[in-house]
Amino acid sequence: MKYESLQPGVERIAREAGRIILGFGEFHVEEKEGHGNFVTDVDCAVQAYLAKALGDLLPGSCFIGEEQENDALTDAPTWVIDPVDGTCNLIHNYRQSAVSIALLEDKQPVLAAVYQPYTDELFFAIKGGGATLNGQRIRASSHPFERALVCFGTSPYHPALAERSMKLALGFLLSTADIRRSGSAALDLAYVACGRQDVFFEITLKPWDFAAGALLVTEAGGRLMMPFEDGEVRFDCSRGILAANALCAEKALALIESM
Amino acid sequence: MKYESLQPGVERIAREAGRIILGFGEFHVEEKEGHGNFVTDVDCAVQAYLAKALGDLLPGSCFIGEEQENDALTDAPTWVIDPVDGTCNLIHNYRQSAVSIALLEDKQPVLAAVYQPYTDELFFAIKGGGATLNGQRIRASSHPFERALVCFGTSPYHPALAERSMKLALGFLLSTADIRRSGSAALDLAYVACGRQDVFFEITLKPWDFAAGALLVTEAGGRLMMPFEDGEVRFDCSRGILAANALCAEKALALIESM
Repeated sequence: MKYESLQPGVERIAREAGRIILGFGEFHVEEKEGHGNFVTDVDCAVQAYLAKALGDLLPGSCFIGEEQENDALTDAPTWVIDPVDGTCNLIHNYRQSAVSIALLEDKQPVLAAVYQPYTDELFFAIKGGGATLNGQRIRASSHPFERALVCFGTSPYHPALAERSMKLALGFLLSTADIRRSGSAALDLAYVACGRQDVFFEITLKPWDFAAGALLVTEAGGRLMMPFEDGEVRFDCSRGILAANALCAEKALALIESM
Repeated sequence: MKYESLQPGVERIAREAGRIILGFGEFHVEEKEGHGNFVTDVDCAVQAYLAKALGDLLPGSCFIGEEQENDALTDAPTWVIDPVDGTCNLIHNYRQSAVSIALLEDKQPVLAAVYQPYTDELFFAIKGGGATLNGQRIRASSHPFERALVCFGTSPYHPALAERSMKLALGFLLSTADIRRSGSAALDLAYVACGRQDVFFEITLKPWDFAAGALLVTEAGGRLMMPFEDGEVRFDCSRGILAANALCAEKALALIESM
């Protein structure tokens, strides 16, 4: 696989980014555009570190990150990263945040790392090479839909989507075992990949929220869909996401399409 | 304080219960009464351990546990425990479960321990003595309502409450920073006590779900209310719970009462 040689470097960089998050101490919080959308000194420091370190690792690569103005995605090798996915959790010390790193080529993810510093869990995948958690192979679960644990996102920066998000969540709550809401889409996708959750949906997300997690899910044998727009799986714009184990995918999709 | 001398023993027992959970290996899952209500070998093994160990620690004490038929609560010293709060999470290896131990006297909690084995976090409180996390004093947060992180329970064993739960959650989502759903009421209350979350509500819970967490919240300076019935704070029957930091309490209560 083309980018296999990058794995040790990306893992080292993801863990170092996690150390920056855990060691930061006091930080400053600012509101960005959108309801409940915050940025901290930590996000900015981690993004600056990742831009430099990942650029050095793959000379000539492009870089798209949450905390900057970005050029449009091209077919060139491009890092798409979220320095702290789960910033609201970080502010509350809720301990559910992750560093999300994806490498895209031809506008599709080819390498993914999601690192949860609070639990020291590193999820990794290369396209065609399977997915791992701290070096151990992971696979999506085989729970049936009726016993599924379904995590969802509230698209919190878009209050206009709140009602639809909660209506969908209610539909899942009545059809499955229960629902969960962690506040980190990158972690939710990683947890679908390793079988801790069976379904994840969120009506709209940015590519840095889902690019890495999407590859983890598909490399772990799960299904990744984008049923909230035209169904095309794209990584160059905001998209709604549905991820599920193979057994739950059709029923989850049908539920979303029915509401 | 009357039961201060029990602290080392209760902490040792809670941690040992956590070791039983983490070390159990393969377990068997059975459905109980109620939608999505499961019991495993782990719950039963931990409860048997706790009944013996806590009875030895306080001779003559009574015992009420989730996984057995119980006599009515009396004024006598009584352990009220949930061996695994978050059984659905345990089944999915979601790693958000806790051992919940409360000691009640005159039908009110006087000692509380909530242990999260996956993160090795032990929350402890004695009535009048404050609350701690791994020995360090904890306090509820001071985030205002508009920036609050609000966790909620779905009362999953009672599908008839699902619609109201989600309607309330939508109300909070539109008024605060965001919502969370972990699947363990004991942990949610412990997290309100240590300031990771600002508000928690669930329309109905059993005493073993909330007795320990309730004391953690009040000893950490938070507010514990039961606004879903007649408002009386009771520990001898199922109750709906609202817990909040002091700054959010009135607004959270008003929101619930308005819906």
